[in-house]
Amino acid sequence: MKQVLGGRCVRCGREFSHIKGPGACPCGGMLDIVYDYSVIRRAASRETISGCRDYSMWRYRAFLPVGEDTLIPPLRVGWSPLYRSVRLARLTSIDRLYVKDDGLNPTGSLKDRASAMAVAKAQEAGASVICCASTGNAGSSLAGNAAAAGMDAVIFIPSRAPRGKVAQLKIFGAMVVMVEGSYEDAFRLSAEAIGRYGWYDRNAAVNPFMMEGKKTVSFEIAEQLGWQVPDWVAVSVGDGCTIAGVWKGFTDLFAAGLIDRLPRLVSVQAANCCPIHRALHTGGDVVACSEDTIADSIAVGVPRNPDKAIRAIRESNGITVEVEDGEILEAMSVLGRTQGVFAEPAGAAGLAGLMKAVRQGLVPKDASAVAIVTGNGLKDTVNAIRAAGEPMRVPPDFRLPDEWLFRP
Amino acid sequence: MKQVLGGRCVRCGREFSHIKGPGACPCGGMLDIVYDYSVIRRAASRETISGCRDYSMWRYRAFLPVGEDTLIPPLRVGWSPLYRSVRLARLTSIDRLYVKDDGLNPTGSLKDRASAMAVAKAQEAGASVICCASTGNAGSSLAGNAAAAGMDAVIFIPSRAPRGKVAQLKIFGAMVVMVEGSYEDAFRLSAEAIGRYGWYDRNAAVNPFMMEGKKTVSFEIAEQLGWQVPDWVAVSVGDGCTIAGVWKGFTDLFAAGLIDRLPRLVSVQAANCCPIHRALHTGGDVVACSEDTIADSIAVGVPRNPDKAIRAIRESNGITVEVEDGEILEAMSVLGRTQGVFAEPAGAAGLAGLMKAVRQGLVPKDASAVAIVTGNGLKDTVNAIRAAGEPMRVPPDFRLPDEWLFRP
Repeated sequence: MKQVLGGRCVRCGREFSHIKGPGACPCGGMLDIVYDYSVIRRAASRETISGCRDYSMWRYRAFLPVGEDTLIPPLRVGWSPLYRSVRLARLTSIDRLYVKDDGLNPTGSLKDRASAMAVAKAQEAGASVICCASTGNAGSSLAGNAAAAGMDAVIFIPSRAPRGKVAQLKIFGAMVVMVEGSYEDAFRLSAEAIGRYGWYDRNAAVNPFMMEGKKTVSFEIAEQLGWQVPDWVAVSVGDGCTIAGVWKGFTDLFAAGLIDRLPRLVSVQAANCCPIHRALHTGGDVVACSEDTIADSIAVGVPRNPDKAIRAIRESNGITVEVEDGEILEAMSVLGRTQGVFAEPAGAAGLAGLMKAVRQGLVPKDASAVAIVTGNGLKDTVNAIRAAGEPMRVPPDFRLPDEWLFRP
Repeated sequence: MKQVLGGRCVRCGREFSHIKGPGACPCGGMLDIVYDYSVIRRAASRETISGCRDYSMWRYRAFLPVGEDTLIPPLRVGWSPLYRSVRLARLTSIDRLYVKDDGLNPTGSLKDRASAMAVAKAQEAGASVICCASTGNAGSSLAGNAAAAGMDAVIFIPSRAPRGKVAQLKIFGAMVVMVEGSYEDAFRLSAEAIGRYGWYDRNAAVNPFMMEGKKTVSFEIAEQLGWQVPDWVAVSVGDGCTIAGVWKGFTDLFAAGLIDRLPRLVSVQAANCCPIHRALHTGGDVVACSEDTIADSIAVGVPRNPDKAIRAIRESNGITVEVEDGEILEAMSVLGRTQGVFAEPAGAAGLAGLMKAVRQGLVPKDASAVAIVTGNGLKDTVNAIRAAGEPMRVPPDFRLPDEWLFRP
């Protein structure tokens, strides 16, 4: 792994020449993986990447903290489609709008990118049990990726997790501990269990490698746009690890000379659970929030990775937006109707925030923007039907009317 | 479209030099699309296909009934992963077992292949509304593919359709008519409406192009196995169109000289709804069945395409298997635990039947086999939890035990 120089603490700046595994700096700060971009430049160019036949996140191996001997887990993660959404752009009043459908990953969310990395690193470390707390997607992606690799997974989730995610966890054979409390309660119990039983820690706010998996979504956006960088990238924010990963992806590409500019980030949180948004707007500390939103994946009252998220938003000269649940439901509906993409509430929140930012003049209409759909709508059918309504019911002997307008 | 010679009736053999659109032979028989394989041979080889950068079903365009001007619908359909399933093979006592996860198509089922073709052909025909009856997947795939292409869709479904599929239909903005009756009732009403209002007909048992979309799953299996053909291919059967499409794919490749042998098919139906299985076993006609199985996608009491299905099974020297709902649930669970693939009941039925056929000695242990997973488990979380059980629940102040075995 010549490309990896070591780690650096986000908070105190202390440098480490070797990152053994999950864990933070003694000061409590999160670690960043630090690369030698001259090594990466020699190993990867636009041409070598475009010529690669591995259409998964591992086509960017030169940029990842894995060695030649690292076993790549079996599920095919990444290379999700990026759609140019012409009708949605018109509705949103933005010039060029793209939707990155990461809900088409093997377990239906962007979290597969981190979980695949977790399984690879856990196997490297000789672990056999891997654990995390999750609002649902991190857990189900870990359960699926671990199952395919023959590893055991233990997942702590809050009891409000939608049924689709619970079903996935159980089908993938994970040990599932449903905590009758908040995500924070689940997180605390998971940390305690990891400490006590020595399980491998996949909590993205503790394990610095998780962000390295997530960043591949940005590599794909850049490559799929022919290495042209969009003006804006919108993504929903819970713990803060995903937006930090999105930013790391673009800064990595920039440092390695594969792109010539950086996008601005649109960080989107639910209005009733927006601790990072609030901290940035008030300039104060991150204060715990309630978790009262339909967007369960980002219903994180105590974000575990605010440092990296806030840094990413600031460094990118980005903006933060809060959206009401009604705006999320509307974005789900518009996305489905105009683009055939079915997002879970948190998955559509990025788009909802982008639409709002355009309406508010924060994002100019002549811009190009990518909205990342972070999770598949099939995980939460209750809210989908809330967004789109029930079908009409007819008896089997129903007599067709003489005329039937398509949209009654 | 020099590669298309015309059509031929499956029943009476009558030939047609031009297929205008959906419809059957005057004798009532279904039509097959007939190709000029010398044209295909000149246009496509193993090498040209392998070199193609379009990783979707349209990489096999030389084999499809579309012209150079045909608009390809936006959703990225096809090129689903094929996994070598070593642990599952051990459990199943079969030498080489592969799982083709077609649940990772954009709307979560193999039906996307037919619906993408439907939208392409409907646009060619100048239609603006497209319609079908569906147990759920054909409809949701049509709704999604039509939405992305800016077309309107009308879907007739039986009221028993699981919530995931209903949610998809509504989110994609289709007009959804839920018929309080059987699939047969929904089919009859759809046919009546198509006749009365002049909508484009996507019913796979009427529209001969649908099978041409579905056959791409076999092209992918062959290419992903390095153009080596497995001994057996197992797939679940409802209307009969999918297994007919699977067979058409292999026979097309064989006729064009891209593969040197053909697989044998394993046709799998639910024990409580197996009209095609019964007809083949008794040698008699197809007799209507009840639709009493959890595998809703193949709960088709009156199959609309038995001719092509039965021909495919016979020509391939195939076998038919019936599986109990309990065997389907067990296959869902095993597939999730060992391979990280989450199948809906009908999606796991192919594997359940293959496992049964091996146990019964119908498929020898030293064989190679592919089980096609036709639909994503997230579409039906109720049955998934039935297969895998509920998670354990703990209070937020739960005290961890001193020791916690991974599988309690």
